[in-house]
Amino acid sequence: MDFRTIAVLGGGAGARALAADLALQGCAVRMWDLPQFFTALTCLQQEPTLTATGVIQGQAALELVSGNLEMVVRDADFICVVTQALAHAQIAEALAPIVTADQCILVNPGSSGGALEFARVLHDRTAAKPVIAETSTLTHTCRIVSNREVLIRMRVGLVKMAALPASSTERVLGSLRSLLPGLRPARDVLETMLCNGNPIIHPTVMLLNTGTVERSGGRWQFYEEGFTPSVAAVVETLDAERIALGRALGLELLPEPEMSYRQGYSTHTDYLRAYRDGPGFQGLGGPDAMSHRYITEDVACALVTLLELGQVCGVPMPVAAAIAQLASTVSERDYVREARRGLRSLGLADLTPEQMLRFVQQGQCD
Amino acid sequence: MDFRTIAVLGGGAGARALAADLALQGCAVRMWDLPQFFTALTCLQQEPTLTATGVIQGQAALELVSGNLEMVVRDADFICVVTQALAHAQIAEALAPIVTADQCILVNPGSSGGALEFARVLHDRTAAKPVIAETSTLTHTCRIVSNREVLIRMRVGLVKMAALPASSTERVLGSLRSLLPGLRPARDVLETMLCNGNPIIHPTVMLLNTGTVERSGGRWQFYEEGFTPSVAAVVETLDAERIALGRALGLELLPEPEMSYRQGYSTHTDYLRAYRDGPGFQGLGGPDAMSHRYITEDVACALVTLLELGQVCGVPMPVAAAIAQLASTVSERDYVREARRGLRSLGLADLTPEQMLRFVQQGQCD
Repeated sequence: MDFRTIAVLGGGAGARALAADLALQGCAVRMWDLPQFFTALTCLQQEPTLTATGVIQGQAALELVSGNLEMVVRDADFICVVTQALAHAQIAEALAPIVTADQCILVNPGSSGGALEFARVLHDRTAAKPVIAETSTLTHTCRIVSNREVLIRMRVGLVKMAALPASSTERVLGSLRSLLPGLRPARDVLETMLCNGNPIIHPTVMLLNTGTVERSGGRWQFYEEGFTPSVAAVVETLDAERIALGRALGLELLPEPEMSYRQGYSTHTDYLRAYRDGPGFQGLGGPDAMSHRYITEDVACALVTLLELGQVCGVPMPVAAAIAQLASTVSERDYVREARRGLRSLGLADLTPEQMLRFVQQGQCD
Repeated sequence: MDFRTIAVLGGGAGARALAADLALQGCAVRMWDLPQFFTALTCLQQEPTLTATGVIQGQAALELVSGNLEMVVRDADFICVVTQALAHAQIAEALAPIVTADQCILVNPGSSGGALEFARVLHDRTAAKPVIAETSTLTHTCRIVSNREVLIRMRVGLVKMAALPASSTERVLGSLRSLLPGLRPARDVLETMLCNGNPIIHPTVMLLNTGTVERSGGRWQFYEEGFTPSVAAVVETLDAERIALGRALGLELLPEPEMSYRQGYSTHTDYLRAYRDGPGFQGLGGPDAMSHRYITEDVACALVTLLELGQVCGVPMPVAAAIAQLASTVSERDYVREARRGLRSLGLADLTPEQMLRFVQQGQCD
């Protein structure tokens, strides 16, 4: 096995699972997080060891846990960004003066456009052009058990990955495939963007269970209880809008439950049973407030992006618009107008669909 | 007190409460319902007596309960239609060959346009021009206890009423005020239409509690449990759209919770506590399916009508549109396109707001 140096940026469950998995495979792993979140990692600074339990087990010794981004990133082969979409721009700004052209940034998950947002921010700030790749979904299903223990429930079985430009995808994949065997090449970052199921599922389940969210104190099961026949019907109709959008961009996307089946989450492929009964979806407690990232992140940074793409491509998305409208009302914000991660912040503003395709394939418009 | 002959058309709780109340006040009351619903009344045919309990108590002897509409309506001073909106057109068709110009039809509740729909159907079928009036909400809060017993929880304290044309409102009101003291004159049937709170409240609470509806088996409280802060926030934003629509038509509408307060339902006037804690809203079990009339009637026959009015008046109604879209998705129908009770079926198609106002005031457009 190649010995690789990998910087993991982020401090949540996903970052810890990835760090532990790669360290246990022999990589030199370093961790860093944004100053406002770093306290979650301070206990690992003195003794940088993570315990992995679940499908991957062991004591993972990390090379370094530090709040100094430059030390963590220096000479790393891969810089893995494992955070909410809302943090991507800030991390990209912090990386701009540090990252070199021969490094690779992997945004895991891309959360519908992470690679594009990184590229746009870096492009504005540095001449270095590292390869930037994103995954369609997080590579690990996991949760934090304690300060030092992360439970890895599953290595996700089918994770689409694309680099920007797409011509670099195979090179990135060749380096990572042995470490993360679930990775599969996507045509480009438009495909990874459109293979993110979160904006299809999370806001819909939240809104159609608003009363439950706010009455529950968090004592409810997001999938087993949140999915009922009408909830599944709305998710299915919204997913059909996503698939139509993909078709307009030349992509034959799998329906979300089919994707969940292939990823190992579920044992059915219909929209109700896949989520309500899928083993990978069991026992995941639901939020206790509508200010949860299932709304703030998945509408602001992904559903709104799909809506903007729909407009450019001439694909009607009335259910997406309705969900975004109700989410905006609940949050007392206008997510559509804010366009927190709209086409402009992804560097895709004012492009035709054809120009977008050239951009993601070649890294430039024309 | 004047002795009056009153035909009550309908067989549900509201019809029974009105019939019992008026009979106990000395009116000669007759009851009829559509053939498909008449079985609910058959037990009253032989022995036409209703027991009222609650705020009105007594044995109410009815003059007649019959499936023969002509017998029930002949020489009645008032024909009170107390049914779902979905039945109005069919009842109007049945009345067309029977009703005379000196009779008065009271659609109670109008459910946003009952008087207009009656007028349009009668206009197409008969030269007789009875006065048609509608209430903004049902005059009684009630429920059926058994075949012969109706519980009257409340005579509603503020029920807007208008006749078509509005110039007849005072005459109708003068005849009814002593029998139904909660009645208050509205400017016209546009005001009664816009004072119907059901399309503002029912579909929103249903959709934002979809999971609860479908998991509950009906074992949940529609108001106490259905109203949480975010549900109230969406109701409030939707109600602001209704109030803006009223303003465009020259009406200063009360916010819904203020109206509920004056009607006697609630003790607060904010959107959460008015409904969650209002004494008149306590103990009302919720539906167990999304096919309930809180969606099928209140979206199809009222919310969609408000949306069409909004378009004519240039008032944006994005939350109303979102609710209608999600309701359509859940019901696998397109309520907006169906326009089950849109401006066309109300005889208001292709009119400017000014022409509509003249029509409801004078009974003709120009």
